[in-house]
Amino acid sequence: MESRIEEDSIGKKEIPAGAYYGVHSLRAAENFQITDLNIHPRLVRSLAKIKKAAAITNSRIGLLEDSRAEAISQACDEVIGGAYRDQFIVDAVQGGAGTSINMNMNEVLANRAIEILGGEKGDYDVVHPNNDVNMGQSTNDVIPTAAKITTISMLEEVVERVEALHEALDEKGDEFDEIIKMGRTQLQDAVPIRLGQEFKAYATAVRRDRRRIEETIEDLKVINLGATAVGTGLNADQNYFDIVTRVLKDITALDLTQAEDLIDATQNVDAFVGVSSSLKTCVSNLSKIASDLRLMSSGPRTGLNEINLPAVQAGSSIMPGKVNPVIPEVINQIAYHIMGSDATITKAAEAGQLELNVMQPVIMYNLFQAIEMLRKGLETFVENCIKGIEANAERCEELVDSSVGIITAISPHIGYETAARIAKRALDEDRSVREVILEEEILDEAKLEKILNPYEMTEPGIAGRDILNEEEE
Amino acid sequence: MESRIEEDSIGKKEIPAGAYYGVHSLRAAENFQITDLNIHPRLVRSLAKIKKAAAITNSRIGLLEDSRAEAISQACDEVIGGAYRDQFIVDAVQGGAGTSINMNMNEVLANRAIEILGGEKGDYDVVHPNNDVNMGQSTNDVIPTAAKITTISMLEEVVERVEALHEALDEKGDEFDEIIKMGRTQLQDAVPIRLGQEFKAYATAVRRDRRRIEETIEDLKVINLGATAVGTGLNADQNYFDIVTRVLKDITALDLTQAEDLIDATQNVDAFVGVSSSLKTCVSNLSKIASDLRLMSSGPRTGLNEINLPAVQAGSSIMPGKVNPVIPEVINQIAYHIMGSDATITKAAEAGQLELNVMQPVIMYNLFQAIEMLRKGLETFVENCIKGIEANAERCEELVDSSVGIITAISPHIGYETAARIAKRALDEDRSVREVILEEEILDEAKLEKILNPYEMTEPGIAGRDILNEEEE
Amino acid sequence: MESRIEEDSIGKKEIPAGAYYGVHSLRAAENFQITDLNIHPRLVRSLAKIKKAAAITNSRIGLLEDSRAEAISQACDEVIGGAYRDQFIVDAVQGGAGTSINMNMNEVLANRAIEILGGEKGDYDVVHPNNDVNMGQSTNDVIPTAAKITTISMLEEVVERVEALHEALDEKGDEFDEIIKMGRTQLQDAVPIRLGQEFKAYATAVRRDRRRIEETIEDLKVINLGATAVGTGLNADQNYFDIVTRVLKDITALDLTQAEDLIDATQNVDAFVGVSSSLKTCVSNLSKIASDLRLMSSGPRTGLNEINLPAVQAGSSIMPGKVNPVIPEVINQIAYHIMGSDATITKAAEAGQLELNVMQPVIMYNLFQAIEMLRKGLETFVENCIKGIEANAERCEELVDSSVGIITAISPHIGYETAARIAKRALDEDRSVREVILEEEILDEAKLEKILNPYEMTEPGIAGRDILNEEEE
Amino acid sequence: MESRIEEDSIGKKEIPAGAYYGVHSLRAAENFQITDLNIHPRLVRSLAKIKKAAAITNSRIGLLEDSRAEAISQACDEVIGGAYRDQFIVDAVQGGAGTSINMNMNEVLANRAIEILGGEKGDYDVVHPNNDVNMGQSTNDVIPTAAKITTISMLEEVVERVEALHEALDEKGDEFDEIIKMGRTQLQDAVPIRLGQEFKAYATAVRRDRRRIEETIEDLKVINLGATAVGTGLNADQNYFDIVTRVLKDITALDLTQAEDLIDATQNVDAFVGVSSSLKTCVSNLSKIASDLRLMSSGPRTGLNEINLPAVQAGSSIMPGKVNPVIPEVINQIAYHIMGSDATITKAAEAGQLELNVMQPVIMYNLFQAIEMLRKGLETFVENCIKGIEANAERCEELVDSSVGIITAISPHIGYETAARIAKRALDEDRSVREVILEEEILDEAKLEKILNPYEMTEPGIAGRDILNEEEE
Repeated sequence: MESRIEEDSIGKKEIPAGAYYGVHSLRAAENFQITDLNIHPRLVRSLAKIKKAAAITNSRIGLLEDSRAEAISQACDEVIGGAYRDQFIVDAVQGGAGTSINMNMNEVLANRAIEILGGEKGDYDVVHPNNDVNMGQSTNDVIPTAAKITTISMLEEVVERVEALHEALDEKGDEFDEIIKMGRTQLQDAVPIRLGQEFKAYATAVRRDRRRIEETIEDLKVINLGATAVGTGLNADQNYFDIVTRVLKDITALDLTQAEDLIDATQNVDAFVGVSSSLKTCVSNLSKIASDLRLMSSGPRTGLNEINLPAVQAGSSIMPGKVNPVIPEVINQIAYHIMGSDATITKAAEAGQLELNVMQPVIMYNLFQAIEMLRKGLETFVENCIKGIEANAERCEELVDSSVGIITAISPHIGYETAARIAKRALDEDRSVREVILEEEILDEAKLEKILNPYEMTEPGIAGRDILNEEEE
Repeated sequence: MESRIEEDSIGKKEIPAGAYYGVHSLRAAENFQITDLNIHPRLVRSLAKIKKAAAITNSRIGLLEDSRAEAISQACDEVIGGAYRDQFIVDAVQGGAGTSINMNMNEVLANRAIEILGGEKGDYDVVHPNNDVNMGQSTNDVIPTAAKITTISMLEEVVERVEALHEALDEKGDEFDEIIKMGRTQLQDAVPIRLGQEFKAYATAVRRDRRRIEETIEDLKVINLGATAVGTGLNADQNYFDIVTRVLKDITALDLTQAEDLIDATQNVDAFVGVSSSLKTCVSNLSKIASDLRLMSSGPRTGLNEINLPAVQAGSSIMPGKVNPVIPEVINQIAYHIMGSDATITKAAEAGQLELNVMQPVIMYNLFQAIEMLRKGLETFVENCIKGIEANAERCEELVDSSVGIITAISPHIGYETAARIAKRALDEDRSVREVILEEEILDEAKLEKILNPYEMTEPGIAGRDILNEEEE
Repeated sequence: MESRIEEDSIGKKEIPAGAYYGVHSLRAAENFQITDLNIHPRLVRSLAKIKKAAAITNSRIGLLEDSRAEAISQACDEVIGGAYRDQFIVDAVQGGAGTSINMNMNEVLANRAIEILGGEKGDYDVVHPNNDVNMGQSTNDVIPTAAKITTISMLEEVVERVEALHEALDEKGDEFDEIIKMGRTQLQDAVPIRLGQEFKAYATAVRRDRRRIEETIEDLKVINLGATAVGTGLNADQNYFDIVTRVLKDITALDLTQAEDLIDATQNVDAFVGVSSSLKTCVSNLSKIASDLRLMSSGPRTGLNEINLPAVQAGSSIMPGKVNPVIPEVINQIAYHIMGSDATITKAAEAGQLELNVMQPVIMYNLFQAIEMLRKGLETFVENCIKGIEANAERCEELVDSSVGIITAISPHIGYETAARIAKRALDEDRSVREVILEEEILDEAKLEKILNPYEMTEPGIAGRDILNEEEE
Repeated sequence: MESRIEEDSIGKKEIPAGAYYGVHSLRAAENFQITDLNIHPRLVRSLAKIKKAAAITNSRIGLLEDSRAEAISQACDEVIGGAYRDQFIVDAVQGGAGTSINMNMNEVLANRAIEILGGEKGDYDVVHPNNDVNMGQSTNDVIPTAAKITTISMLEEVVERVEALHEALDEKGDEFDEIIKMGRTQLQDAVPIRLGQEFKAYATAVRRDRRRIEETIEDLKVINLGATAVGTGLNADQNYFDIVTRVLKDITALDLTQAEDLIDATQNVDAFVGVSSSLKTCVSNLSKIASDLRLMSSGPRTGLNEINLPAVQAGSSIMPGKVNPVIPEVINQIAYHIMGSDATITKAAEAGQLELNVMQPVIMYNLFQAIEMLRKGLETFVENCIKGIEANAERCEELVDSSVGIITAISPHIGYETAARIAKRALDEDRSVREVILEEEILDEAKLEKILNPYEMTEPGIAGRDILNEEEE
């Protein structure tokens, strides 16, 4: 393979002749083979947009020759369009706060710009990765900015999916509004509830998650471009400093603002912890919902069997005909994964030191994966599970009828102790509450009928309130 | 010891004659000896307020005789005032979603109300723990409501402390605005920064935490009183249902509203996960600040020694004269503790099933402790550390002068590669950058002087920008 | 209140005249009010044993006068016996690696020894907290050593409890060996299993936990007494260094050895992470078992209802007669708590720096609490839950009979696809597998009888293996 | 594209004609697009070995025709050799306890075996994925077994790397044995220590990690092959049951045994929690070491600068000449990642229900990644960092000389209070301890000389012990 020689402060190094990346990228790729996954394509795109904004700005303020700026800008557009993906060779998890990501981008853009300007790859007099492409910038401002842009766009997609879940649940809430079933607390028979109420409750919880996730986007819009190495803006020309965020805002069509406190914005990554926390809170709800669905669909013969989940694949290699709740199960798994990611991100954030948090690669890696797993999980959850759920209305009704939990509705009429005694007797003798009460002549059939209206029991109020007044008289 | 006999569905049980608690409390106290810590006093107080609101409401709507309601109400006031603390005997961590806490309260209030009405403790015909004190309520609505009220008031205090920290840091930011010191990224010499800028950055980050914590309070104001067992409001009289939240609002002076979706509000505890997450995010910042203070005050002779923390106690039992950064150290420890609590709370929230999350006791235990540890930590942090921090201005200056990091400011004038070479030579030969540049006649003394103005280096711009134009010409 | 004046390097301070603690303790108590919980009584006792060992050793090698040593030793014995508990005033969570705990102990012992020798409290010429009580020691060796001794004894108790759980489960395994019930995978009907097999499986898992916990005790026996400040043993006389561990071994009756690498033993706390990890692994099993018990006892009418847990308290303030699985529920909560503690301990361990891990107080606080919660949880789990579990044999049998999962046993005889079709048809038409097979004349009644022996299905082998051969012929 | 039609209980589905996978795989691939990463290649290989063992066994006991068994066995060998990698199309994270992984394997092997036997892909009469390839097996025994085999081989590689780190650190310990430097506790000057002692301490800690990791391998060797669906062994012929583990043992050359309690071995995954915990404990040590290296190499001019890490890449895109400790930084990041993975794995393990833990895919995904990240991190840590570390002996010596921490050595001679006063005076007046003591005539120069021997201060003993006796006389 043909090669060219590049040199940095460590020494000389052979680079494949066709490579757009250079010595810095290659050293990093050799130093870090940790995940065998490269920088996230979306981060690549975000960073290219920043580089473009910088080139345009530097040209506009007269620091970068127009020809160089245009060549860099064109190279950026190509990368944004998806080109040169295989030239971004550094591992997603790496030492340094993203220096290798930034240098990989600088080198690829420089070499592509050199080509555009008719030069030979590696001839950095034509376009220089640091002096030209990275002009006015530092890893420490471009990487956090790229991370924020990437996160915003990923989150917007997640928010859509959370909303889609909300809607699907809400629709099921309407669909199941007439299905009366037994409510359970601590998995023990409690009092009747409507299946629709349960799905509405899921929908309500998920709506809160949407809001919580959205709230975290605000902090992401505050970027530190222009901050350079430590937030002071050293080496960022004053005009560049004033303009570049606006240029980037136009390129990204995101409502970005330059942080008022750039020192803070350069060293602190709590905005990402905030995002991760909102995802974690979201999955604590989703996992609860998924577990409920698995419980309610358990059986079919030896479980609760109140609902049917759509069968999306055969369930067992050994047990013929078995269908499993595989979609909710993957939601649980995603939830556990994201809880772990959140622990990682929090610890990494806490490990910041002085002017920089060097743990940003592992933060980005975990955050991007968490967001994407959540999005993809939500897609399959809505499409392959929620939308196809069916209620077993008869079974639900049977269970309500057999339950002793309805004694609760009778309790205001006969007192807690008597009620407790009746419940116990019904269970011990395997009879219904109604039967025992009638036998003991505690209430007559007419009154019982009024009290034990299942639908009424699912709405606020003392069942048979008017009789209560009667009794008191 | 004299005793009385009480009975429940499990059987008869001896209760100390003087006890206000009853059989339910005692069984729970025997079943759960987990933390050896009782219910949090603030939770007791919040719950008593709820019981008072219920008694007033039930009397107002004609379900509870005025005399009973008044006696219960008086008993509540006494508990709110701090009485009978030793009668709340159940462990903070317990099975059930707080049933034992609720029953402990019902029994203490009932027995105290019986006393007020001239009866004998245990004579529940006078006032009944379930039928009267708990009228229209369920553990599953009063406990989440009490937890929310308690959390709100605790958080308000924390927010004050976070703000106090913000102010203390901000003041230090002003005080240290003239102190130029070396900025460090990855603990390596970077470029100059002002000590005041660092403290301002801390202040800015902490302000964000304040906002994040405050945002979580909104969800806490939405309560489920009236929801009873599963959120349907069964056994809560319609009038009670409509009024009780307003009565509680008056008693607590908090801006509470009844949840629109009570099924959701009864079974989901994500509001607490949200709170915990905001605390966790906050401590990730605080711990970073604490670690920075420990780094900057390291030494005094063999560390950075840029600042002095106030000496608050002798540091060593063996090393005379040693003074340690004990206050920041406890902040780190609190941070690690709260990260762990957050993991617990999240997992417990995820474990909710169907109509109830039965893990609420461990959630409350961890959340209340996390909030209080944070509040107390902040108090000592502000008073015993931040306010007394002093800068070692001379030492800071010396370090800036000795550093090679200032080469960054020169880089736009001489290019990245030359600058890198100079830096390396300076380090290898243990000389200053200035010296090497002059020797190599790369820039003259006048130009260097213009570029290397330390204060200017701490503000946006290319140091010596005007010379740059000159050079280009 | 009368007082005396003490002085340290910070300045003078008034101490209550009757106090055994001194200026160092009081400053620490004022600086740290974090948990409002004092040092764990067991840690106090362990530390007193170490102080006694040091006093005896220092006297034996001629560095400490016999009279002083005897007075200190007597004071230690009193503290070990439980005296002066209220004199240990420092908070469990504190800055410093336990310096304030050590100084609190040094001061209490010194003042008590002074008293014994007829002096006045505070007259440290008689016995000096640092020079005499702390002679040859540093916080950095006595605290890790005390932590290890404390942990060993706590763990020994836990191991007993884990073993008691193993035995209780194992006995239930025997008791339930004949109860055939439906096995479930993914909460879906799978194939028959015996209830006894399930309890035996729990017993087996718990036995593994016992071994894992025990394995971590080994590292705890390796202590760093004699290491002093950084592990080099500076200021520990060579003879003291050689003897003191043996003296402590005699006092504690534990099989302690002095670490070969004292630098390591002074700075690293991974032994505690190891312990915490084994607890965490244990509770991941316990929580699974607890959840299973809650599932199997769900109902009684609308759940699985395969077993009954003993009723230990009434379950609801609103729902009469409800009995909840409160004991398993608290096991889940303890599990979530310990998972959180483990996160805290791990992060605190990771935060060690150079010669010391200063986060030891928060490690000890979390570890001791985790161990004690586990022990107490296990006690109530065994006594109030496991031992009283009863099987609902009839219900179990009914469920097996109604299930279609038994098709699995028939599958080797008729092939996976046919079996899957039969299962589907049985479910769709709400009939039994047996019925459908007979109707379709796939197998005759005699063969079915041989294959569908429920007990045989719970043991290895192809049910009706001999018929299989027949069929093939 | 040409296709064939396959059918399962869900319905008909088009499969690409050339595909070795079938309908079950394709459905799963469509249902789960979560990580976009496929099953780990090593898991594929392990599973193929199990399938081979099953085929051989089934043929040996006369249940599977030799020709089919041989064809399957050959297909297995091809997969083990790396063939058909692109045919394993299911996502690493998926619902179900690995059913889709197992079915993907069954289908690929069946179709390849069909080919070998001259049939057409999809003609499962020739070789059937369930009836033939999966004969006597269930997902619930083959997947846990494959996971264990995979983990063992991965761990063996990690153990080698941990040992390599131990050795590299140990060698540095020898190399630096003469370098006396200042020991620091709480980042404050403490007492002298040798740089070699520090590296030896690291080596010692890492050796403990090796042992802890190795200990977890034992539980992995106990497999549940033969357990089938729920551990009872239903449908595993008795002869197969007795033989298959031994056949697999031969194929894998691992010391495997069949679990005595197969019910337990089928449902519990604590062995993986144990492995993960040992990794987590390991990285808590590694991260501490990495942080220490970053501290000690901080500077070069404004930090501690006691050691130099090898420069492996340029450190900054903006700051020329900057070299960063990127290798230790990635170790920290890996540590935070693995701490998060451990949280995920623990939660997933705790979520097992009854006869199965369905969360195994997310456990495997996280565990395999954790192990591989650790292995790769260790490789670069040893090769690109530890081996090249150099000491700055002069700088170390300077810092010791300037420190006041050496007052500790003098303390036994002059008492704690006097020593503390001297230390304070030296610091306040910016002088050396020695100077102040001489000026105050507390000790003469000869005595001081004896006491302040730096090397002696790094070994156990009271410096100048003989003078001490003198003084006492």
